[in-house]
Amino acid sequence: MGTIYFTFEPREDLKQPLFSEFPQVDFLFDTKLDVEKLAQAEILVTYGEDLKEQHLQYADKLQWIFVASAGIEKMPAEAIAKRNIIVSNVRGIHKKPMTESILAHILALKRVLPFIYEQQQKKEWNKKARPTELNGSTALIIGPGAIGGEIGRILQAFDVHTIGCNRSGNEAPYMDETYKLDDLKQHLPKADIVISILPSTKETKHLLTREHFEKMKNSAIFMNFGRGDVVDTDTLIKVLQDKLIEHAVLDVYELEPLPSDSLLWDLDNVTLSPHFSSHSSRYVERSLDIFKPSLKKWLNGERDLENKMDILRGY
Amino acid sequence: MGTIYFTFEPREDLKQPLFSEFPQVDFLFDTKLDVEKLAQAEILVTYGEDLKEQHLQYADKLQWIFVASAGIEKMPAEAIAKRNIIVSNVRGIHKKPMTESILAHILALKRVLPFIYEQQQKKEWNKKARPTELNGSTALIIGPGAIGGEIGRILQAFDVHTIGCNRSGNEAPYMDETYKLDDLKQHLPKADIVISILPSTKETKHLLTREHFEKMKNSAIFMNFGRGDVVDTDTLIKVLQDKLIEHAVLDVYELEPLPSDSLLWDLDNVTLSPHFSSHSSRYVERSLDIFKPSLKKWLNGERDLENKMDILRGY
Repeated sequence: MGTIYFTFEPREDLKQPLFSEFPQVDFLFDTKLDVEKLAQAEILVTYGEDLKEQHLQYADKLQWIFVASAGIEKMPAEAIAKRNIIVSNVRGIHKKPMTESILAHILALKRVLPFIYEQQQKKEWNKKARPTELNGSTALIIGPGAIGGEIGRILQAFDVHTIGCNRSGNEAPYMDETYKLDDLKQHLPKADIVISILPSTKETKHLLTREHFEKMKNSAIFMNFGRGDVVDTDTLIKVLQDKLIEHAVLDVYELEPLPSDSLLWDLDNVTLSPHFSSHSSRYVERSLDIFKPSLKKWLNGERDLENKMDILRGY
Repeated sequence: MGTIYFTFEPREDLKQPLFSEFPQVDFLFDTKLDVEKLAQAEILVTYGEDLKEQHLQYADKLQWIFVASAGIEKMPAEAIAKRNIIVSNVRGIHKKPMTESILAHILALKRVLPFIYEQQQKKEWNKKARPTELNGSTALIIGPGAIGGEIGRILQAFDVHTIGCNRSGNEAPYMDETYKLDDLKQHLPKADIVISILPSTKETKHLLTREHFEKMKNSAIFMNFGRGDVVDTDTLIKVLQDKLIEHAVLDVYELEPLPSDSLLWDLDNVTLSPHFSSHSSRYVERSLDIFKPSLKKWLNGERDLENKMDILRGY
């Protein structure tokens, strides 16, 4: 068995169990990608943002890349595919923290938390806001995979009617109705909340146009927790300036970090989260919980790892 | 049939159905309590804050008070009981909006929404916060009635372990464990979130002492959405100054409005909501949905109205 090279440092209390559970393995840890270490690695464990195409020439022994993240857009997909390197990720790891973030934002808006915080800052007792309720509303989830299912499950617990839109239109878990993405426009008028969790692919880039927002209710909340390029930034800004919808909650952007001169910063009908809705103090622990069973399989010669991805398709 | 006197004005679209469903009834609406109108009323519909003992001498015909609120502390209980006036309220109406408020606050803290809002105000892209997760934690609900059950139901959907403490210690819906209020202290150390929804009674006044907060985890969130006098304000301030717990979320206070010189305003480990966690733009609509079936019963001579209360016991 060769070396496992981590391009990040887990906490000591998370590293020790690795050593004791896998005594036959050499572990290397770093806080950046070093080509000399990469040259020794059979397995690379990375957040997926450091590996570039030019590094692969040094990675002679590399057979498996474990990406402790969901997005792999920054990885040299074609070069990896050409080398037949297996890629797996931590799909599913985000579903609970991300669902909690999404619900936090929805409930905060419905129950006027920004108003409450503002009054508290001013030390003012002020009830002059109109809290509304989530229960009884309708949510449309664009791209209901593992994360969408978890969002649907929780929304249903809040008595929200859930509509899913996916490529096939096939039934999806925790969706009361599911339709084809091609028919998205005709279902948008029903939704009080529209949540995109689409990944970035050729098909999803700029999938949402101004016309989609025109179909939404004036009172709709639009949430983008997938990838920023599902809607052109200028289109989105114009939609919000024109108040076609009531509010947007964005965690992802076409350009990240969001440039400091972006007009998005100037709008008051948007919440801007810096692409960390799935962050969690329990993240590395959870990644290792997914990595370890796969590593056991790997050491047994099995190659049907959990969350194996098609790097060229992007998911 | 006599007159029904509302000391508030429902919206026109909510009043019209009353007229058409109950053509035999005379309705009077006002925005305050007027003794001349009260003198004609067989039924009084009030938020419960306007009726004073001295008014009752004019209320010769009064037989039923429908309180469109949960709290009746400001009502002249003994005088009402002496006159054998039936009192019913809108118990249950608060459970959904209040549960949504409570979850909004919990999730906002776990998913660092105050930090996100602050960075956005500064127009700064900043990920330097540590979001945590709700799932997997333990919540202790003090006083798990209708509202507590709804909170428990939603918390369980988030994979939270729920512990209830009530007077009897009898099993309560959506509580994984239930204990007697007398044994509260020994269960506090288990909880990540402690939620009081106790009403104000002789038994609950200042029920929580500094010792209770000493038993809680340092990382605990304490939420008071019941009544403010469950803990002495100075004790609570000291607890927060001494950082015995991580954060408090308060919707209720011993003195309301919270005095502008209260030290609570100066603390940064507390969220202060101005006693409107159950407010909702759908509130009056919902109150009338509870009132109308009872009114039908009343007109049929039935007196076993929904949510009939024991005004002397206070619930």
